[in-house]
Amino acid sequence: MAGRYGDDMNSTALPLIQLSEQFARLPGIGMKTAQRLAYYVMTMSDDDARAFADAIMTAHSTVKECSLCCNLTENELCPVCAESSRDHGIICVVENPKDITAFERTNEYNGVYHVLHGLISPMDGITPDMLRVKQLLSRVGKGVREVIMATNPTVEGEATAMYISKLIKPLGVKVTRLAFGLPVGGTLEFADEVTLFKALENRSEI
Amino acid sequence: MAGRYGDDMNSTALPLIQLSEQFARLPGIGMKTAQRLAYYVMTMSDDDARAFADAIMTAHSTVKECSLCCNLTENELCPVCAESSRDHGIICVVENPKDITAFERTNEYNGVYHVLHGLISPMDGITPDMLRVKQLLSRVGKGVREVIMATNPTVEGEATAMYISKLIKPLGVKVTRLAFGLPVGGTLEFADEVTLFKALENRSEI
Repeated sequence: MAGRYGDDMNSTALPLIQLSEQFARLPGIGMKTAQRLAYYVMTMSDDDARAFADAIMTAHSTVKECSLCCNLTENELCPVCAESSRDHGIICVVENPKDITAFERTNEYNGVYHVLHGLISPMDGITPDMLRVKQLLSRVGKGVREVIMATNPTVEGEATAMYISKLIKPLGVKVTRLAFGLPVGGTLEFADEVTLFKALENRSEI
Repeated sequence: MAGRYGDDMNSTALPLIQLSEQFARLPGIGMKTAQRLAYYVMTMSDDDARAFADAIMTAHSTVKECSLCCNLTENELCPVCAESSRDHGIICVVENPKDITAFERTNEYNGVYHVLHGLISPMDGITPDMLRVKQLLSRVGKGVREVIMATNPTVEGEATAMYISKLIKPLGVKVTRLAFGLPVGGTLEFADEVTLFKALENRSEI
């Protein structure tokens, strides 16, 4: 990585270059932003810098996967799985822990989740055994009535939803998929053809 | 800060929320990006996470200001000040250590620098005594022939350049300012009036 910053960084202290390189490894952080962040760290108080470094280590060492749904948590069970008032008969299957936050924000869903930690993508070398599919199948037997496939409406998301539904359906469990259609607040004018076709196909009586 | 992420973060592990908050304190990093970065840290290997945390602490604890020019360095003197082949009779005064990198990239400047670590800005409560002006004045006596004011062409940059030049001129040292004009590769069409006026005013004979 040293070459990335080239000779024009000769005037910069080595630990600063190394910190810039660490920031540049984060997704969506380019070289210039990484440098700006590294310089910002220099202006932090000792306590603040230590709190930042500690937060990285603490999060990385204490947060693990929920033994039931594979969501990220500090305890054996994540807050959703631990809540007895939730309907453990409905499992919503998502790609990332972040997606759970999105569903929880609706305040409408009362079932539980299952986090795959990725999508099947042969192009990127991600095969089904690299996802938490086995853990999902082991849950399905135990009184589950419905599995909602809530992966993204992308090629990988669709393929993963299809793959998993084919494994679950033979077990006699209902498998559903999120509805496709116009986004609320969106306009027809800006809807793409596929979305519009799906909205037409899935039309409902008023 | 806890309120920022609200109740919809109930499903998220606390150390992850705390790490997101640390990222969100960095300049230009919003709440959503901070969350994305925190989740990325979870996917790092143990070694990588430790290297990241260590880089923050190392940079913060070992990098200090050069005793001569106030640039950031791990040693007593920064690489520029330590180089005897450079012309210590010309001092280029800049706002930030980052600006030095920009000048060094031109490969044309052979003098030394002085970093103010800010600009005078009464609106933000930044007074001259909060900058490294005193350190600059103590250098000027010792055989310095010219001081180049290389602060940004902003209100604060101009005010700071004016303020410092008024302190240095009585000491019998030449004070210069970076030239204003059209940026190389730019077009007249997109130049603002002030830049165009400066370009006209500072025109030179061909």
